[in-house]
Amino acid sequence: MNPSAAAIRIQKEYSKKTRKSHALYKKSMSCFPGGISHNIRYFAPYPFYTKFAKGKYLRDVDGNNYTDYWMGHWALLIGHSHPVVASAVRRQTSHGTLFGTVNKLSLDLAYAIKKGMPRAELIRYSSTGSEATMYAVRLARAKTGRRVVAKIVGGWHGYNTNLLQSVNYPFELDEGLGLIQDEEQFVESIPFNDLERSLKILDTIRDDLACIIVEPVLGGAGCITPESDYLHGLQEFAKRNDALYILDEIVTGFRLSFRGAAHVYKLDPDLFTLGKIVGGGLPIGVLCGDKDIMSLCNPVGREKSEVACYIGGGTFSANPLTMTAGLSTLKHLKENKSAIYPKINKIGTRIRKGLKKAFSEGGVDVDVKGIGSLFMTHFLNKDIRKISSALDVGLSDRDLLRKYHFALIAKHKMFFLPEKMGAISSMHSLKDADHLIDATQQIVQSGLLSPAK
Amino acid sequence: MNPSAAAIRIQKEYSKKTRKSHALYKKSMSCFPGGISHNIRYFAPYPFYTKFAKGKYLRDVDGNNYTDYWMGHWALLIGHSHPVVASAVRRQTSHGTLFGTVNKLSLDLAYAIKKGMPRAELIRYSSTGSEATMYAVRLARAKTGRRVVAKIVGGWHGYNTNLLQSVNYPFELDEGLGLIQDEEQFVESIPFNDLERSLKILDTIRDDLACIIVEPVLGGAGCITPESDYLHGLQEFAKRNDALYILDEIVTGFRLSFRGAAHVYKLDPDLFTLGKIVGGGLPIGVLCGDKDIMSLCNPVGREKSEVACYIGGGTFSANPLTMTAGLSTLKHLKENKSAIYPKINKIGTRIRKGLKKAFSEGGVDVDVKGIGSLFMTHFLNKDIRKISSALDVGLSDRDLLRKYHFALIAKHKMFFLPEKMGAISSMHSLKDADHLIDATQQIVQSGLLSPAK
Repeated sequence: MNPSAAAIRIQKEYSKKTRKSHALYKKSMSCFPGGISHNIRYFAPYPFYTKFAKGKYLRDVDGNNYTDYWMGHWALLIGHSHPVVASAVRRQTSHGTLFGTVNKLSLDLAYAIKKGMPRAELIRYSSTGSEATMYAVRLARAKTGRRVVAKIVGGWHGYNTNLLQSVNYPFELDEGLGLIQDEEQFVESIPFNDLERSLKILDTIRDDLACIIVEPVLGGAGCITPESDYLHGLQEFAKRNDALYILDEIVTGFRLSFRGAAHVYKLDPDLFTLGKIVGGGLPIGVLCGDKDIMSLCNPVGREKSEVACYIGGGTFSANPLTMTAGLSTLKHLKENKSAIYPKINKIGTRIRKGLKKAFSEGGVDVDVKGIGSLFMTHFLNKDIRKISSALDVGLSDRDLLRKYHFALIAKHKMFFLPEKMGAISSMHSLKDADHLIDATQQIVQSGLLSPAK
Repeated sequence: MNPSAAAIRIQKEYSKKTRKSHALYKKSMSCFPGGISHNIRYFAPYPFYTKFAKGKYLRDVDGNNYTDYWMGHWALLIGHSHPVVASAVRRQTSHGTLFGTVNKLSLDLAYAIKKGMPRAELIRYSSTGSEATMYAVRLARAKTGRRVVAKIVGGWHGYNTNLLQSVNYPFELDEGLGLIQDEEQFVESIPFNDLERSLKILDTIRDDLACIIVEPVLGGAGCITPESDYLHGLQEFAKRNDALYILDEIVTGFRLSFRGAAHVYKLDPDLFTLGKIVGGGLPIGVLCGDKDIMSLCNPVGREKSEVACYIGGGTFSANPLTMTAGLSTLKHLKENKSAIYPKINKIGTRIRKGLKKAFSEGGVDVDVKGIGSLFMTHFLNKDIRKISSALDVGLSDRDLLRKYHFALIAKHKMFFLPEKMGAISSMHSLKDADHLIDATQQIVQSGLLSPAK
């Protein structure tokens, strides 16, 4: 079949299976801009509406079951509504969801975090990752007395005003309306995996450089792993120039290993952020790090003349429901870490190898990126022969990627948020890997991804 | 008894009753800067640790029960773990807490919000109020192409970088380390309840004025109600000068009335923010308002050349657990609104009158502020004879306020977050009002609040 006929057939199949979702999406359009509350949750022609999620499965309002590879923005390492988490949350719900006052659960979760990540000398909870990275920047400016924040081209640290820069291709443009230039001028963007150019740029701003903030694996930008000494090179530059090195481990913390990416790549950040997994499926952001730096936000017992760095917090920070969900998740991970991490990493490896083989045998030119339980396929073209930065991803064939992901959803009941990386949970199995590889082979054979004639 | 002897006695009483909390606080100091995850949750000598919360009660780890007037940062209008909310949350927990994908519950909650607040033509969910106000500012700048944000001196809109200005007395100083001047220059602060001066200041910046953002009742700054035409004066100025008028109803929405403060004060904001109550005790922020303005953040179906205003969202936005909690709360409020609002307002009125009388009869000079179910006592002195702005609050006797609130906690088992306003929930009764007034009389008679000799 030629590719456009194949695409039309898949679209029809989706429409037929998702009539109730379509009706709900029409209603959503009159309640929400674009029908959604998160820019990436829309995909054409309309997203299905989830009614139920358990383990590795999503079930939509039309009764379709999908094997989920998006797993709640990659947050659900042990699956949707894991029994140990769900029962803890249910119990806590009757005991109070938002005390407002302090509670012991937040202390227990802090100990659990420190167990995995001993660099978390002191911790502050917020309710989202976007808040955590915003506060990390504020602390870095407070500590150094400098203004400039260096981030990676394509690096994603949430929608906060401080870091919403150079996120989307073609990167040099403003990240949309409403961000004023006077804020933007203090963010400098450097290219991932190009240490020489990065250091050259950093060198021009070193006297006013407050921090370098980096995801150890570029997540939203395309699951791009760091090459050889890139992360160490940045760390060394930061330390040599009295700027802070901030690792954004919101995606990788407790995923790449129980001790995070810092452990895998042997990094020593001054501050780091967590989110997603540590909330056990409930809202959380966490800022952690060096005692002296973190202490700048301590409001207790200061002299009037001593000014602190004010960061949240927030109404819902350290709420007992999130703390319980996070705590039961980390406990489960700790108790089962020798089973879970090798398992999810093995599935990840099988998928990466299998996809590469399936595409290659079908004559489709791809680079499959990832590490451990994270993976993503990028479609190459004559200009882009391999993927090592967000710019490469921007120049790759995004249209093929959308088609591939949509075919997985519509025809094979495997959910990937179109254009985003996949994540394995402890609920997935090697069989799932084989199914995904099979489905990919079928999609390749269907002609959907062949060059248009 | 002389005041310092009375204070020492109360402190001893608290220490004796809260030994386990004290031990936990010592541990917390080695995990969190200042032992807390929200700056205001600390109070001297250490906060008690809540173990259980139900209805109007908090129970701490030592087994003390407190009647709660803080009610989860004023979020819990129908009490802690209300049965209808708790059972909905428990049920949803088994069906998934974070789909990642879109869901019908977010649509149902949107309809419930629109029912109360029809000005919510379009809605976007975030996970915290601090995010919602940050995004409101971004949308205002996107809509107007201007940069300056006018806020109230003492106005509180969360810890976000855009609005963390002029929050704390003496207001002219920086709000702590880590905020850079280049960001601050685009925030202009105006004095609450002084329309003439406010308009004079606004007039100097009107050509670059993107928005005026205001809490209809100043919450964190001291429960200060608006005088006569202040809010209308600001609204008129904004509309006349093509700036947006943004009402921050995170505290007042669904509290001052089912239709919020906009209804009570007959205001017509372009955008408004919600939080707290609409999350039913789970993390939420909501940005609502005019269709055309909200549509600027719609990422769907734009031409490549058409730039949107990028706002969150966030991983946990519109998660089904928060949506369920919010929905069951608003349903309960709607079904019982003719009982709940008159009741909580009546309790509020009795408290305000009773406190005023109790202090006045005891020769303690106070102003009791508030409206509906919100109230707060301010201790006057020779300079400050009444409270109508955050500056007045800053100059009032905060030390007496701390002593009064702490005595209520330590001796009378009534919890007020020291120095913050009280909030009535539907679980409170007129008897609670009488107990609070009685306790206040006893504190006055104990000599604790008398001038030192």
